[in-house]
Amino acid sequence: MAEIILNRGAERRLKRGHLWIYSNEVDTKRSPLKGIESGSQCTVCDSQGKKLGTAFINPSQLICGRLVSRDGELDRPLLRQRLRTALNMRQRYFAHPSYRLVYGDSDWLPGLVVDRFDDILVVQVSNWGMERLLPEVIELLDELVQPRGILLRNDHQGRAVEEMPLQNSVVSGEVPELVPFEENGVGLLAPVHHGQKTGWFYDHRENRALLNRWVNGKRVLDLFSYAGGWGVQALANGAAHTTCVDASQQALDWCQANAEHNQAADRLSTVQGKAVDVLKAMIGSGEKFDVVVLDPPAFIKRRKDHKAGLAAYRHINELAMRLLSRGGLLVSASCSMHLAADELLETVRGAARKLDRSAAILSTGYQGADHPVHPAIPETRYLKAHFVHLG
Amino acid sequence: MAEIILNRGAERRLKRGHLWIYSNEVDTKRSPLKGIESGSQCTVCDSQGKKLGTAFINPSQLICGRLVSRDGELDRPLLRQRLRTALNMRQRYFAHPSYRLVYGDSDWLPGLVVDRFDDILVVQVSNWGMERLLPEVIELLDELVQPRGILLRNDHQGRAVEEMPLQNSVVSGEVPELVPFEENGVGLLAPVHHGQKTGWFYDHRENRALLNRWVNGKRVLDLFSYAGGWGVQALANGAAHTTCVDASQQALDWCQANAEHNQAADRLSTVQGKAVDVLKAMIGSGEKFDVVVLDPPAFIKRRKDHKAGLAAYRHINELAMRLLSRGGLLVSASCSMHLAADELLETVRGAARKLDRSAAILSTGYQGADHPVHPAIPETRYLKAHFVHLG
Repeated sequence: MAEIILNRGAERRLKRGHLWIYSNEVDTKRSPLKGIESGSQCTVCDSQGKKLGTAFINPSQLICGRLVSRDGELDRPLLRQRLRTALNMRQRYFAHPSYRLVYGDSDWLPGLVVDRFDDILVVQVSNWGMERLLPEVIELLDELVQPRGILLRNDHQGRAVEEMPLQNSVVSGEVPELVPFEENGVGLLAPVHHGQKTGWFYDHRENRALLNRWVNGKRVLDLFSYAGGWGVQALANGAAHTTCVDASQQALDWCQANAEHNQAADRLSTVQGKAVDVLKAMIGSGEKFDVVVLDPPAFIKRRKDHKAGLAAYRHINELAMRLLSRGGLLVSASCSMHLAADELLETVRGAARKLDRSAAILSTGYQGADHPVHPAIPETRYLKAHFVHLG
Repeated sequence: MAEIILNRGAERRLKRGHLWIYSNEVDTKRSPLKGIESGSQCTVCDSQGKKLGTAFINPSQLICGRLVSRDGELDRPLLRQRLRTALNMRQRYFAHPSYRLVYGDSDWLPGLVVDRFDDILVVQVSNWGMERLLPEVIELLDELVQPRGILLRNDHQGRAVEEMPLQNSVVSGEVPELVPFEENGVGLLAPVHHGQKTGWFYDHRENRALLNRWVNGKRVLDLFSYAGGWGVQALANGAAHTTCVDASQQALDWCQANAEHNQAADRLSTVQGKAVDVLKAMIGSGEKFDVVVLDPPAFIKRRKDHKAGLAAYRHINELAMRLLSRGGLLVSASCSMHLAADELLETVRGAARKLDRSAAILSTGYQGADHPVHPAIPETRYLKAHFVHLG
């Protein structure tokens, strides 16, 4: 195995528990990255030559190394152990087998995401190191979970960045178009083949669980609804009516399917259009809701988008608040890693002050337990949701 | 009503939504604080003379003013409206009438805390302004809630600071020693007369609800247990055994009473002693638990205690981890306003690295919805709890 030697002091982050190596931290005079094949596993040493562990190396990336162990290679036995540990942990904390089974770095499996929908697994791979291990990952998942089918969703942008091929395929068994699963006791259908990411966003599970307690008899507006994660669960928990808004008609069709799956289609309306336009039209016609869920895609994808993104969050939070009746509840979420929970809170505060309405934060939630935060890797925490009672 | 004129620019925080005025922000040449009686309501103006609202004034305090409205006096009709609003909000979000009914600034009622235990109310007043309104507060609570009894718990340190008399009294109806109430569906008893604060810490309700899902069949250690908020609820949710540790034998007697109330006394052990000493003894004898709850009193009471307090959190988190079996769960909480959630997380990270154990943060929780955070007043958020899965 080739050796990667770090610059003096560059081992500090790794010693604290982080797993990433930036290309400018490598002493390329002593250990040139050039010539190392993408996805190789290399031994990583500090400038004194002390071994720190083994890493996936991709010489062309800013994050050129991702630690896979503090010891030797990530081989089949270690891979098996890591997958077993990840499975044990989910089985410990989830009664029903619908969850993110593997969450990359947090499970010591950089570049691997596995979402489990009962007996179907959906896998995403986002670096060459994990790509090389993929045949073994699939075999081991088959062995450990014994699923009905495994779908590889490899059409995501992360792969394009690493110049990896973008292609989906069923790599084991069979995988239906819409896969039944459960979230917070509600039966749902995940469009695993053609939906966003793996087909479902499990990360908001606990936030939805909290909202589910507060929707009985309420009129709910679900913005950026996708397949109805919030809005349809609200219907299943007694909401009087839900309006789902999404730019994609296909997403709204999935909302419809999920509402039908819950015998609640008569209480669902869908509106196809851009959220901001729909909000303005609704404000214009004087509509009011008891609950508004604002769970937009990341407005801040890169650090340099911060200012523009923040303004976008401000604008849409203000529009959402204007649709809330007195005593209404806003769920204001963000999945932007570059937007801190406190910044989103400040956005909410500013919008409420501008509208001269009191705002009380009832709860702030993050990702669920199947997306565990690695305490040394702040990047593993990206999701936040504030529950705001508006006077 | 006397006028308080602020220094130039000092209105900024108030305009953002905050409610506090510091004594060095008052233009005492134009509006001397001296001579104003503690607890008076005064009109607050910016340096241009523009009215900002009405505040309780206590000229001897660092925080010499607390806004009670952005308009006129906090009189009986406005007080009634504020209490009504607070009650409506709790009724909206809580199915059972056990909650903090009034949470000071967050409910626009500075200096007033009211905890509701079904048909018993426990009231705490912490500034002279609210003290003056107390007879009306009691009358209005009687009118709005129609409780069986109201207890005034005025023996807390906050009152000593404001030089207010420290005396408890039943001011309406009757109040038993142990008051039955409910938290997360578990029937409990609150020692309202002689317990800490109002007798119960409702603030951890949601964090306990999360833990309750993960204790079935587990051996639980509840440190700084007080009356068993975590530990006894765990027993009621199927924990195999709970050990409650507290320095106070009386607190442990209340644990016992709560366990008996849940027909679970046979699964409870109590250990009287200092947590650090007990932890060391348990480590010495090789004891292990599946779940450890570490919910200490505030180690950082004032900002200047930060460094020493942080070291104390570090030490005790490490000790707690050493008692956890592999795959165990640590609940690491802090009620120190001066300790940020991220600082506590960093403490957990450091302790886990030192012991060479992997740590996955499953959840981070704050206060429940009956302790709403005021988005412009960071001081209203003080509680945090990390759920840490230890490899």
